[in-house]
Amino acid sequence: MKTLISQALRYEGNQLLVLDQSKLPFEQIWLLCHSPDEMVLMIQRLAVRGAPLIGVAAALSLAHYVEQGATDEEIRIAANQLERARPTAVNLSYCIRRLMREYGKARDQQAIVLEAEKIFEEDAQLSEKISQEGASLIQDGESILTHCNAGGLVTTGPGTALGVILRAHHQGKALHVYVDETRPLLQGGRLTAWELASHGVPYTLICDNMAASLMLQGKIQRVITGADRIAANGDTANKIGTYSIAALAFMHQIPFHIAAPVTTFDFNCASGAEIHIEERSQDEVRGYADFRWALPDAVCYNPAFDVTPARYISSFITEIGVLNSSAAFTRLRQEQIKHQETALLVE
Amino acid sequence: MKTLISQALRYEGNQLLVLDQSKLPFEQIWLLCHSPDEMVLMIQRLAVRGAPLIGVAAALSLAHYVEQGATDEEIRIAANQLERARPTAVNLSYCIRRLMREYGKARDQQAIVLEAEKIFEEDAQLSEKISQEGASLIQDGESILTHCNAGGLVTTGPGTALGVILRAHHQGKALHVYVDETRPLLQGGRLTAWELASHGVPYTLICDNMAASLMLQGKIQRVITGADRIAANGDTANKIGTYSIAALAFMHQIPFHIAAPVTTFDFNCASGAEIHIEERSQDEVRGYADFRWALPDAVCYNPAFDVTPARYISSFITEIGVLNSSAAFTRLRQEQIKHQETALLVE
Repeated sequence: MKTLISQALRYEGNQLLVLDQSKLPFEQIWLLCHSPDEMVLMIQRLAVRGAPLIGVAAALSLAHYVEQGATDEEIRIAANQLERARPTAVNLSYCIRRLMREYGKARDQQAIVLEAEKIFEEDAQLSEKISQEGASLIQDGESILTHCNAGGLVTTGPGTALGVILRAHHQGKALHVYVDETRPLLQGGRLTAWELASHGVPYTLICDNMAASLMLQGKIQRVITGADRIAANGDTANKIGTYSIAALAFMHQIPFHIAAPVTTFDFNCASGAEIHIEERSQDEVRGYADFRWALPDAVCYNPAFDVTPARYISSFITEIGVLNSSAAFTRLRQEQIKHQETALLVE
Repeated sequence: MKTLISQALRYEGNQLLVLDQSKLPFEQIWLLCHSPDEMVLMIQRLAVRGAPLIGVAAALSLAHYVEQGATDEEIRIAANQLERARPTAVNLSYCIRRLMREYGKARDQQAIVLEAEKIFEEDAQLSEKISQEGASLIQDGESILTHCNAGGLVTTGPGTALGVILRAHHQGKALHVYVDETRPLLQGGRLTAWELASHGVPYTLICDNMAASLMLQGKIQRVITGADRIAANGDTANKIGTYSIAALAFMHQIPFHIAAPVTTFDFNCASGAEIHIEERSQDEVRGYADFRWALPDAVCYNPAFDVTPARYISSFITEIGVLNSSAAFTRLRQEQIKHQETALLVE
């Protein structure tokens, strides 16, 4: 496989390396990933995270396995395990199915390697295009709220929601970003604040429960987040807390956008009710990392995602443009059905 | 001063003791408070917390100072410092002014001691009465959301919002309580979950950003919180995040109640815009206690409270009944003006 380099994922010298995002922002540790089994664990403990990136990382892991001389049966077992590492984001399943389809067509394991390289490179291009499409929405002087982390750590390019914001910043627009810390895993406090600081974008980190009050005070003009899966009717699964800010944005008449590649649309899924929401360990709510503030037997609820009904989403920022009507959705669906690769989604 | 005992505040054997709430739920440490200066620090670092309790604790501290032989000038300086320890809750200023008024009338320092005892005992009775008035609103089988901590730790009786819930539970109603963890200081995760568990009330601890999704799923039938200051028009200051859940409750057509004694109404304050919101250290947003997950130079915003506009509040649960109309407000204001003690508020 060729050398592939992004902010949180690298393939070089026949080694697959992932930046351990659970250690950021205090330590930048690159982990060697030796096998698909290890990648499954890294995805599950969120060393590798973010809907687009886990798909790309899983694809590279399978390609790496091919290069290590895996048999047909080993590849099929590994593909199955990688696809099921986390249930909510569509990208993981999309990427693995795409590799296996090319493998099936070519009857040559090398097809997996070539397709994984293509996925890596496409992902960078997609987020460049999304950033460009979205930046045109943003006006000079706006304050933008974002949730979780959807920047250069979760794609092989500039990111989705954060890519849009960075592009607008580089266009010279004066922006301020409010960053939800995003409990329980604090991706906003740990990752987004760090990324914005490194790019010199003015930002303010807030607790999730502060956003509403800022909206009431007129201090937020726009909300942009990423997405893990978008149903055929536009209902969108994203990091827990996204629905809260979408509903509040609607109530305060603030535009709310989802930035994601079109592969995030899952037309097999009629509505949000069909999206499987991953529940994670209660310990994540009892504290953070090894630190606890609630009792070990405190009863907790810990869904990793929630579903925002389509009616609260002003528009979807994608690489093919900003979609904000059901007509745009219909066109997208038709194109997906025609398109060889994305047609996998409606198999 | 006579012996006075509550869950988080004690006066016995001429010693004033406060339960260090910053160490709960892992350690129950009672701190000896030797002087008003120490009490100011304990209030500021939230060892003593909760709008009603900081008022009572400050009153006991001033009375204790009298018993230690403080001069008239020392008392006046201490009263002034205690009153200004935290700005948002009205109770602190109400209690201190009440003591100083009795002192002024009687021209006898012992009046401060007698009035502090009265404040302690009245506070217990008020929260009993609030609990009783509010419990009648709650239906069998309801799930109730609460925010922050307004139980036996913040009054000398059963609490305000949590007192209402506990009373309904003891009446045999089947209830479930969703507890917002309440970032940044996690009073829900540390204190409310612990109190509910100790009373055997079924509860689920959630991150603040999960409440909206539960509302959308129809899993919350009622919201009850305490208050730090209620303006003449009903706008209410309470722990940061209260406005978020009040707005979301309104949107999901879920009743939202404030439980607080009538002394929380500040008719000197025309609307929420006049309430001074305390901003606390940015470090509280960068982590919790000594643990940090955001960088030390991360730019943060940390208001301790927010203001919920009156239009989102279904009713106020007080010791004189459940107030849910402007007519009830007008009556309350007239009574306050007539009433010797509460008239202090409109001086």
